[in-house]
Amino acid sequence: MPEQSPLDLAEDDPFGLHNLPYGVFSTADEPDRRRIGVRYGDHVLDVHTAASALGSPHSDVLARPTLNALMAMGRPVWQAVRADIRTWLGYPAIEPFLHPLTDVTLRLPFEVADYVDFYASEHHATNVGRIFRPDGEPLTPNWKHLPIGYHGRSGTVVVSGTPVRRPSGQRKAPADPAPGFGPTQRLDIEAEVGFVVGSPSALGEQVPQSAFRDHVFGVCLLNDWSARDIQAWEYVPLGPFLGKSFATSVSAWITPLEALDEARTAPPARDHELLPYLDDSGLEPGGLDIRITVAINGHTVSEPPFSTMYWTAAQQLAHMTVNGASLRTGDLFASGTVSGPRPEERGCLLELTWAGRDALELPGGNRTFLEDDDEVTLTAWAPGPGGVRIGLGEVTGRIVPNGR
Amino acid sequence: MPEQSPLDLAEDDPFGLHNLPYGVFSTADEPDRRRIGVRYGDHVLDVHTAASALGSPHSDVLARPTLNALMAMGRPVWQAVRADIRTWLGYPAIEPFLHPLTDVTLRLPFEVADYVDFYASEHHATNVGRIFRPDGEPLTPNWKHLPIGYHGRSGTVVVSGTPVRRPSGQRKAPADPAPGFGPTQRLDIEAEVGFVVGSPSALGEQVPQSAFRDHVFGVCLLNDWSARDIQAWEYVPLGPFLGKSFATSVSAWITPLEALDEARTAPPARDHELLPYLDDSGLEPGGLDIRITVAINGHTVSEPPFSTMYWTAAQQLAHMTVNGASLRTGDLFASGTVSGPRPEERGCLLELTWAGRDALELPGGNRTFLEDDDEVTLTAWAPGPGGVRIGLGEVTGRIVPNGR
Repeated sequence: MPEQSPLDLAEDDPFGLHNLPYGVFSTADEPDRRRIGVRYGDHVLDVHTAASALGSPHSDVLARPTLNALMAMGRPVWQAVRADIRTWLGYPAIEPFLHPLTDVTLRLPFEVADYVDFYASEHHATNVGRIFRPDGEPLTPNWKHLPIGYHGRSGTVVVSGTPVRRPSGQRKAPADPAPGFGPTQRLDIEAEVGFVVGSPSALGEQVPQSAFRDHVFGVCLLNDWSARDIQAWEYVPLGPFLGKSFATSVSAWITPLEALDEARTAPPARDHELLPYLDDSGLEPGGLDIRITVAINGHTVSEPPFSTMYWTAAQQLAHMTVNGASLRTGDLFASGTVSGPRPEERGCLLELTWAGRDALELPGGNRTFLEDDDEVTLTAWAPGPGGVRIGLGEVTGRIVPNGR
Repeated sequence: MPEQSPLDLAEDDPFGLHNLPYGVFSTADEPDRRRIGVRYGDHVLDVHTAASALGSPHSDVLARPTLNALMAMGRPVWQAVRADIRTWLGYPAIEPFLHPLTDVTLRLPFEVADYVDFYASEHHATNVGRIFRPDGEPLTPNWKHLPIGYHGRSGTVVVSGTPVRRPSGQRKAPADPAPGFGPTQRLDIEAEVGFVVGSPSALGEQVPQSAFRDHVFGVCLLNDWSARDIQAWEYVPLGPFLGKSFATSVSAWITPLEALDEARTAPPARDHELLPYLDDSGLEPGGLDIRITVAINGHTVSEPPFSTMYWTAAQQLAHMTVNGASLRTGDLFASGTVSGPRPEERGCLLELTWAGRDALELPGGNRTFLEDDDEVTLTAWAPGPGGVRIGLGEVTGRIVPNGR
């Protein structure tokens, strides 16, 4: 039997020609040389070397150690480079530029400028409200009028596969006389989708929803690790800080926005009138039909549907800039925990176990929150052209004990 | 009368040999060439060119367009470069490297990595609590156990002198049936002191208070512009976002930490026992006797004393990293509004006017919050050796109407 070429991909491969997500990799013989690559099946196309060898007009920005320079070029260049790569993958001569995924190390694909996390799932916000404020309205009065968000720590955004050390911090249960200190006892995940800004905007400029495709380069999966006991004690009145800032994991692959055209879907019906800058009637559908799977130690614990998110990424972009705040290449904004209406669609353990009341039954032992050495993996796909699935790169992380 | 040399500085000049703050400047004939400089009296020493001409062993990091490379070198290099510059300023031959301040444009001196804002003044937090929650305890239960902080937007940190456009956004008074949209009606300042991180730390590492001098390069003044109506509507439950993210102004000059040795002072007595990582008994005094002046259109409206801050910058640094969050060169963390115990020592208009109830009388007309074309200037000094004052660079900004 002749050896199969990596160029001969099954038509329904989730990382085929309709997808082509970008990443940054290095090889074992040159671990410090970071190169831009594109995933094709189970291989990585060395786009850096291929662009140089083939004389691409964009070989300069493709020769950088992160995606930022390419992202800063803007949408016409993103489209041109994507078209070129598709063409190259039709050349048999491209085969030497393909590395098996198992031979490379995947790196953080872009330098993160500002990181903003939203809170855009009505089901998640409602569940959290019921858990923390059982006697009050689950949603705060502002929730349906604006996409609530806050800034996170961009310096601790790490690539999938990076171990996550259990953080220490202050925590205090209501009955405790004073706060204690130690490793978090309520280490949680948040399954999210992240959006990566390519084209910047000027200070003082409002970016309308209609400019979403001009500014957003692509999409990643994101796990916003959360220490619920630290967060609960610290977050009033200025929001989450150390309960989140120890690590945020992103997938190694950034799926171009264009690859998700078939996944466009209308967001849920809105029951409040929106201010003009957030009104998306008449615009292309702002939702995305991305199906996420959350697994702990290989066992699926949830399947959050991104299509159920109340606020869209285009609305988040418009809101984030409505006060004139500028965008920079590398800005990352994430959806907040993705939770669907059904219990098995909840995107964090806080909801899945109802704050630890109902343990999840897993083959290795029940879980309320994460234990040391647990490995969490988010995967996802979205519908592509002709029924093909578009695979989103996984984001995975293993919990390292605090003392190690 | 012979022309005076810029090297002949009065002994009590607040920008003399004991100060030597760093900045980045450009000149009219080369506006795109950003050079590191050090302020000396009313002049800027072109450190970039001087270091190259004099064969400094650190001329490489001094030839960059921001301070980041120098800051990343660590404390021994900061000390060596500072000693060199002092020596150079004793050479008559250095005079051609001095530019009058009036001839240069001052630039943002460093590339901001993460920006964290604390809430460390007990007087400020108490006043704000009384204004917003008149029937509750003014301080939240966590306030005396940890320095409360949150991440801000680093992409909109601007240098002193940058005009600040009045932001638009959603606001809703309790009696309004639905939120409205428009330019903020409650544009405010926050007089703060910022700390700039030089030496980074590794992910997972806790930085103790005792390592403060190894990590913190210097100090700036900071105005955390705030739109109180936008903030009040958005900030529950995840903290300030668009009410702050439109602009944060920093002084053009970064005062080396070493220049503030004589300003060290004990923070106020603590009435709660602190967890070990925040306990600063036995360490060098963590407070700084910095006297701030806030002026609107040239008229002093407040004189906030930084020495009254409850939480010190060393405690903030230890807290920010206690969960293992890493530091990057260029991280900026600010104190939060500096307010002293007396009414004329309050660092924001929210407090000075008690949320608009008591207008400030200014020669140009009364003020509750800022009006278009108002110019706000923060200046400050601290005691130096032998009674000399150490001047901190000013931070100024003029409000540009929303429509312009």
